[in-house]
Amino acid sequence: MLVIDCHGHFTSEPAQVAAFRSRQLSALESGDASGVALPVITDDELADAVSGNQLRVMDERGIDVVLFSPRASAMGHHVSDQRAGEIWTQLSNDLVYRVCQLFPNRFAPVGQLPQVPGGDLQPSITELRRCAEQLGFVAVNLNPDPSGGHWSGRPVTDPYWFPLYEVMEDLQIPGMIHVSGSCNPNFHALGAHYLNADTTVFMQLLEADLFSRFPGLRFVIPHGGGAVPYHWGRYKGLAARFDMPPVESLMGNVFFDTCVYHRPGVQLLVEVVGTQNVLFGSEMLGAVRGVNPDTGSGWDDTRLYVESLGLDEETRRALYEGNALRVYPRLERRLRDAGR
Amino acid sequence: MLVIDCHGHFTSEPAQVAAFRSRQLSALESGDASGVALPVITDDELADAVSGNQLRVMDERGIDVVLFSPRASAMGHHVSDQRAGEIWTQLSNDLVYRVCQLFPNRFAPVGQLPQVPGGDLQPSITELRRCAEQLGFVAVNLNPDPSGGHWSGRPVTDPYWFPLYEVMEDLQIPGMIHVSGSCNPNFHALGAHYLNADTTVFMQLLEADLFSRFPGLRFVIPHGGGAVPYHWGRYKGLAARFDMPPVESLMGNVFFDTCVYHRPGVQLLVEVVGTQNVLFGSEMLGAVRGVNPDTGSGWDDTRLYVESLGLDEETRRALYEGNALRVYPRLERRLRDAGR
Repeated sequence: MLVIDCHGHFTSEPAQVAAFRSRQLSALESGDASGVALPVITDDELADAVSGNQLRVMDERGIDVVLFSPRASAMGHHVSDQRAGEIWTQLSNDLVYRVCQLFPNRFAPVGQLPQVPGGDLQPSITELRRCAEQLGFVAVNLNPDPSGGHWSGRPVTDPYWFPLYEVMEDLQIPGMIHVSGSCNPNFHALGAHYLNADTTVFMQLLEADLFSRFPGLRFVIPHGGGAVPYHWGRYKGLAARFDMPPVESLMGNVFFDTCVYHRPGVQLLVEVVGTQNVLFGSEMLGAVRGVNPDTGSGWDDTRLYVESLGLDEETRRALYEGNALRVYPRLERRLRDAGR
Repeated sequence: MLVIDCHGHFTSEPAQVAAFRSRQLSALESGDASGVALPVITDDELADAVSGNQLRVMDERGIDVVLFSPRASAMGHHVSDQRAGEIWTQLSNDLVYRVCQLFPNRFAPVGQLPQVPGGDLQPSITELRRCAEQLGFVAVNLNPDPSGGHWSGRPVTDPYWFPLYEVMEDLQIPGMIHVSGSCNPNFHALGAHYLNADTTVFMQLLEADLFSRFPGLRFVIPHGGGAVPYHWGRYKGLAARFDMPPVESLMGNVFFDTCVYHRPGVQLLVEVVGTQNVLFGSEMLGAVRGVNPDTGSGWDDTRLYVESLGLDEETRRALYEGNALRVYPRLERRLRDAGR
């Protein structure tokens, strides 16, 4: 059995990456960022960036494969310059691609998209095609609030998004719902904005009938689904009260990861959502690094929480491997090609 | 032992109330709402409004007392006319007051405030004083996002709010954090906006040091604390990572209700937050009405979930009675005066 972690970001990228972004944003403020030179990063630098970080933790915790995408808080979709967003996105995706080529049996690439608030989605579609068709990406991160905490755009069920969904469905590329940083002082990015987005999008999906139109479209809602599993009865009751389809009707298309950083939360998640819709994830070296002094283990060592539940072998296999291979059709092929 | 439900709204108000608000809003659109006549509502109408609704359910479920406030979704703080908000608020609070006078041993009044987006808080302070000093209110609902889902205002830890907190502390009036309806199409009011606000405010409180300045200020975060207890490990870990005070440092001032509509959620809440910081609440006849067909019981019959946990007598007494009497100092006096 493989242990596949569906939620990892390149949070240990070489310093040149942030330095480039900083130069790009400064140049944008001056009016033109087109001449900002891309950083030169060697394969050795990329290998070093993950060897002492993600790969070390994966080995310590027995994680075989991580679905690996650019740092979420750095996506910065609120920056409204489309061309600058494309350059930044391509650089970020190319680095993820290279890490995954260096360690093809440990990482599978997941992309970011060059979204801008209210912008045309064609550049995102172009990048999605490049990632999936040329670079072997298995999924993409989709930001439901490119404005960065102002929520000035349209719900994910609005026809605005349909052209992108058509291509995602066609390419068998699931979307992880993931906002970037918060520009709104009300929302701490990691402690409010991320979780609010997860909660918000689930309710948007419950209100609409998106998956009748896109039956092959799949969304992974990270961070254990925000507030949703904890309020599972609320959603069931709201669906009944307002004559929406039952929450179960979403379960062919919507999945939650286990990025919930204590045992009772993971236990509730698995109990109420059911094992077919939960994917192992840890987002290690992400929002919540460090060691819980009460346990001596990492807050984000979600394997410990899963292992403590006393699940039978079939359920463990679904959470760690089977569900991921089912949800991400391109992953199995990729892992087979890598000799796993 | 009393069973005190800390979270109830007057959601069964006579039809004249909404009709008045509708006339007021129409008049505002035409420029002047000052001449709109207040509705005439008799005591019999008010008694009828609760007898077949809240009182009936309270009797069925063994709830002795409900902390009773105006309908949350109707507060409508996004309407920016200060004077119209004051009239609407006074009417809403007066009706709650009258219901509580009619059934003084079953209801205790909780007010709304005439907040407007970014507005001066003096009118809210005036109404708070009127409610507490003249009408015997025991608490107040505080809207952390008067803009109604645009989150254009300041975090609840900003000095903007301090004049109000001084009076709340002085009068021993706790605040229930409760948004009103959503004007943002991204946020379903009941399925996203309410929960997001709960999550957001808890993180604001964790980021700041509000209670060193206002040690007597108390907030109740409803709907089981939004996403917070489910992500308790996340908050502990974020506090450690960013050198914030630990979550435990908030526990003298921040409380959660049990408005979580399934057993696993209530179980997690009581387990991780601890029994001293959880208050029984149901918000019955609120967001999630109706019967769960799988159990034959009301979704919002949260007593059933609490009773199913097998808690000892001391814990049950804390959840149902003791914590509420401690958190709301004016409640005990009021119940004693009513002969309870």
